Amino acid sequence: MTSRAAATFRPPVMEARRWRDAATPPEGLPLLNVSQAAPVDPPPEPLRAEMARLVAEVPEVHLYGPVLGLPELRAVIAAQWSAAYGGTIGADQVAVTAGCNQAFCAAIAALTTEGDEVILPTPWYFNHKMWLDMAGVRTVPLPCGDDLLPDPERAAALITPRTRAIVLVTPNNPGGVEYPAEVVRAFHRLAQARGLTLILDETYRDFDARPGAPHDLFADADWPRHLVLLYSFSKAYRLTGHRTGAMIADAATLAEAEKFLDTVAICPPQLGQHAALFGLRTLSQWLSGERAEILDRRAAIEAGAGGLAEAGWRLKGVGAYFAYLEHPFDLPSDTLARRMISEIGVLALPGTMFVPDGDPNGARHLRIAFANVDRAGIAELYARLARLAYPLAETGARG
Amino acid sequence: MTSRAAATFRPPVMEARRWRDAATPPEGLPLLNVSQAAPVDPPPEPLRAEMARLVAEVPEVHLYGPVLGLPELRAVIAAQWSAAYGGTIGADQVAVTAGCNQAFCAAIAALTTEGDEVILPTPWYFNHKMWLDMAGVRTVPLPCGDDLLPDPERAAALITPRTRAIVLVTPNNPGGVEYPAEVVRAFHRLAQARGLTLILDETYRDFDARPGAPHDLFADADWPRHLVLLYSFSKAYRLTGHRTGAMIADAATLAEAEKFLDTVAICPPQLGQHAALFGLRTLSQWLSGERAEILDRRAAIEAGAGGLAEAGWRLKGVGAYFAYLEHPFDLPSDTLARRMISEIGVLALPGTMFVPDGDPNGARHLRIAFANVDRAGIAELYARLARLAYPLAETGARG
Repeated sequence: MTSRAAATFRPPVMEARRWRDAATPPEGLPLLNVSQAAPVDPPPEPLRAEMARLVAEVPEVHLYGPVLGLPELRAVIAAQWSAAYGGTIGADQVAVTAGCNQAFCAAIAALTTEGDEVILPTPWYFNHKMWLDMAGVRTVPLPCGDDLLPDPERAAALITPRTRAIVLVTPNNPGGVEYPAEVVRAFHRLAQARGLTLILDETYRDFDARPGAPHDLFADADWPRHLVLLYSFSKAYRLTGHRTGAMIADAATLAEAEKFLDTVAICPPQLGQHAALFGLRTLSQWLSGERAEILDRRAAIEAGAGGLAEAGWRLKGVGAYFAYLEHPFDLPSDTLARRMISEIGVLALPGTMFVPDGDPNGARHLRIAFANVDRAGIAELYARLARLAYPLAETGARG
Repeated sequence: MTSRAAATFRPPVMEARRWRDAATPPEGLPLLNVSQAAPVDPPPEPLRAEMARLVAEVPEVHLYGPVLGLPELRAVIAAQWSAAYGGTIGADQVAVTAGCNQAFCAAIAALTTEGDEVILPTPWYFNHKMWLDMAGVRTVPLPCGDDLLPDPERAAALITPRTRAIVLVTPNNPGGVEYPAEVVRAFHRLAQARGLTLILDETYRDFDARPGAPHDLFADADWPRHLVLLYSFSKAYRLTGHRTGAMIADAATLAEAEKFLDTVAICPPQLGQHAALFGLRTLSQWLSGERAEILDRRAAIEAGAGGLAEAGWRLKGVGAYFAYLEHPFDLPSDTLARRMISEIGVLALPGTMFVPDGDPNGARHLRIAFANVDRAGIAELYARLARLAYPLAETGARG
């Protein structure tokens, strides 16, 4: 059968789960799962208590709400993002969505149609690729350099009359790289110059190591014409099961997105929205602590990578929840990833899940989602990786 | 800008909300809102208490779950639906979705692609039409008869090589009509004979007035090849704000739907799923009471319609949450609906929101969503409608 769904691949995270279920870690090495970028603990106690109160006492959390989200939440997002980015964002330029994936889908529905093109740096976030496939939009891969950064000039050369948008994810999934402000700015200028939209996915922005705003695009009064920003509350407040994300865009773009959201979702789940509101208002201190912990783990990842360098491993990117490692072996990374489960009890996603065939940043790479692994676990992870022994690749894929 | 979203219209429910905000009911006639089919009260106390407990004590409700829903909920749905419909449905033939609208979208993504056709009886549920527009699927309208029933022979004549599915909603939104088992069966036979899928939306099945199963399609061992059933937990347990629906289909179809759901939703909200599970296990008695109340209101709608008959009004369909009325005036129903707000303080959706131009069951009709109006309110509604006085239409649109 030919269908929109048939036009794309099966969800990689579930593929990895099937690998895990089909393999057994070695005796004494309980599985170290670094495959998924999601909190494994519930929200902090004050938030859980607030949610229990809402469920018991506030009827509205059980009923339909506005398609684009609670007005109060939209207003708080607008105010906090305006302050954080030094720009002017109105409440009518904010929509709440049932997760950040849905925000991406809504943006694509608002901006593109059959046969249009969207430029996606590789390695990409696979759900972006899947949605573009299902939307009938041609994904134009923009291979990143060895530093995992996309090059605006290279992007410019890929623009055609059908190009509608360029997507950047920063801090990046899977690469971990925090895109420098000037790179983001250059892509925004390119979008402005060529009449495109820059879709900026900042799902992991709360774990960016840099102080202050990661870019100054909102300071440009013209931002609504060429920018859509996506955000997730899932990571910050551990609300993955409640599906709460956001989208900041021109009000006219949101009016188009609203048709999509009304039809596919009717409204974002109400409880998650109230939880996000509570989080934005009262949990900034707690979130700082979360960020500090992630940054400490990142430091452990960076420090430990040196020990593997002699064996030919390279840490190509690290940031937010992710490290992107190049392995030294003469093995496709999906084969290696499957073997790692039974040989060293480690489940990581292979670079092949994030790239089109032949991409230099895929076939020999692993994504390590380290957010749920503490310093001891990271040491253990490196110790296990060091045990791997296969024929080495003759030439590195080094740029 | 051309986009998928630009290919469809703005959400009618929101359009109606704009009308309401722009008009003032007359002095002494507070607005009687019969525009939306949604509970206005929270879930019953035992369910709220269970949800509060889950939020406070069960970490899993805050974390990602499987794309196709909680295995336990899928199994209970499979068992209860198998029993209710006298058929065999496996847990792997059930998916949970973030609402029934999303189940419809997923079904369309799994079954169709650009340029395909889907047959939709009119009057239709507007979100179905909107999604088909946005999916690049051509909607082939199947005008119902004056009895608001779709005719399988007429449908057969509309099938082309691009036809992929026929959609039935029963009990119907907006028409209220409960499709007789033989009508549903005839459409299923047609789907089987022509290699199509029958998509059966049973959002309102809990309020069907008929005892027992509304059809016997699941008793056919071949059902998975040509049938997709959609359901909503929103109405039964008053969970609209939590977004919980379901889809019953062939496991292979669900594997395709899974790609869509993974990308647009990641997983259905967890709390709503646990609430649905609690409802299915413990609230059947309570739900019977809810059904009895709705059936009582339906009886009041039927009894009261006679009083308007002399003025030329006709009750063309009634069931579940809806009555579909034909008005006698020489006025397009959208004009009438807008005037009704300021003239008699009634907000109802016009038939024009449910049909393509020129459909005989649209231009002179109103949908009355009476589920939230008690007997006294229904009497008041009829009294207010009786006050309307405009030039009468010269000819009725009677079939």
